Amino acid sequence: MVIAIEWVTSPKPAIKLIDQTRLPLATEYLHIETVDALVDAIATLAVRGAPALGAAGALGVVVAMQQGAAEDWSPDRLDAEIDRIRDARPTAVNLAWGVNEVRNLVPQGVDAVLAKALEVVEEDGDANRRLSHLGADWVTEHIGPQKLRIVTHCNSGALATTAWGTAYGVIHELHERGQVELVYADETRPLLQGARLTSWELVQDGIPHVVEPDGAAASTILRGKADMAIIGADRITANGDTANKIGSVALALACQRAGIPFLVAKF
Amino acid sequence: MVIAIEWVTSPKPAIKLIDQTRLPLATEYLHIETVDALVDAIATLAVRGAPALGAAGALGVVVAMQQGAAEDWSPDRLDAEIDRIRDARPTAVNLAWGVNEVRNLVPQGVDAVLAKALEVVEEDGDANRRLSHLGADWVTEHIGPQKLRIVTHCNSGALATTAWGTAYGVIHELHERGQVELVYADETRPLLQGARLTSWELVQDGIPHVVEPDGAAASTILRGKADMAIIGADRITANGDTANKIGSVALALACQRAGIPFLVAKF
Repeated sequence: MVIAIEWVTSPKPAIKLIDQTRLPLATEYLHIETVDALVDAIATLAVRGAPALGAAGALGVVVAMQQGAAEDWSPDRLDAEIDRIRDARPTAVNLAWGVNEVRNLVPQGVDAVLAKALEVVEEDGDANRRLSHLGADWVTEHIGPQKLRIVTHCNSGALATTAWGTAYGVIHELHERGQVELVYADETRPLLQGARLTSWELVQDGIPHVVEPDGAAASTILRGKADMAIIGADRITANGDTANKIGSVALALACQRAGIPFLVAKF
Repeated sequence: MVIAIEWVTSPKPAIKLIDQTRLPLATEYLHIETVDALVDAIATLAVRGAPALGAAGALGVVVAMQQGAAEDWSPDRLDAEIDRIRDARPTAVNLAWGVNEVRNLVPQGVDAVLAKALEVVEEDGDANRRLSHLGADWVTEHIGPQKLRIVTHCNSGALATTAWGTAYGVIHELHERGQVELVYADETRPLLQGARLTSWELVQDGIPHVVEPDGAAASTILRGKADMAIIGADRITANGDTANKIGSVALALACQRAGIPFLVAKF
């Protein structure tokens, strides 16, 4: 399984990221040792996906503390640099969440922050797996145990998370249970996360799939060629309102019209 | 105004087409003197758009007759070559219609066929203009005389027709009447006819516009940023069912949900 983001100690202590801007043509990694490099990686979408950004936020505080120690930053400067990480992508609530999970430990030193950040990453992986099982159980109970044709939009797999995936994790789990006939991966304009990233993950996992233009999803669904759609989310409010990649609402309207389930998977 | 397709007599008698695969980066023309060249131009979408394909079909019979005379084809061979033109793009009903409008005149000779084909082209231009006026009148009566924000999908302008356009023609006419605030041109994947062709025409005509990913159209509409949508059509059946570019039905669903008019313009 691909690891989108992890902490490494060699050659230097750093965040190791797969550079998602280069996929699927090249599998290259970035070693992030400075706040500037991390903010750039977030801004260019080298790292993206709500859960992966949560991990980047938590581990980013460690990077800031290391850089601050090496460059003798004042506490105020360190604080401002941690704020820069937190605010690097305002629409991804997980990023600020990841930063805030660990920053209260800054006075206890970098080892305490790193330990907590690694805990955040591990909990994220565990939550991925639980979500994937719960989602697959829900699908089996409410849609059926037969092989399913599933539409998804954007990328919510291992690349978007620390492991396994959210919406993609449900698809992956259904595939392991023998319940996936075909996945329609919307290409997801303008940045093609579906065509570049989700299809790459589907290839890695050997899941039958086609990539379709975003505009084709409604036709796929209304012609009876899909049994359900599932997407991840940037954010879900208490009343269930969901913010996610542009194009998600068009998919929801098509599912509503066709009377098939439209699932949003996030924790 | 751009002329997408016309008959020229120099340097040789030929169909002159603007090569739509090169737009907007280059404005280049093709001179079509053989059936092979015409079938290629249709297959590669160098010429596209229902009304323009009608003209290509009618003028294509002239091309076939000229080539047949030069190469001494049998009547059967000529018939087969005309069939190849007719069948070059089965989803565009206008192509076969254009061929069939003139082929009964083949026994009367190439001059009779050319005269009829030019009539077809001219009638198409007249119908464009009438449709544009009728559509703009309908919009003014049913939506209002105020400045409108209009979503369109794919290309239905002068490039798709012999002149003026169908859905685009209505937009153009509304613009001339001072009733266009902003046009949202869906980029129209996979071949980007909106981003490449419609936006090029909107620039030529000085109409304020933005290009948006197809998936963004539903959000534009549901957030109250559009007053209507209008598209052309490959084909409309007697009961009003419409076949058009992939993505059209998603746009229709969003308009239905938002309660704004969704117009289809074709003759």
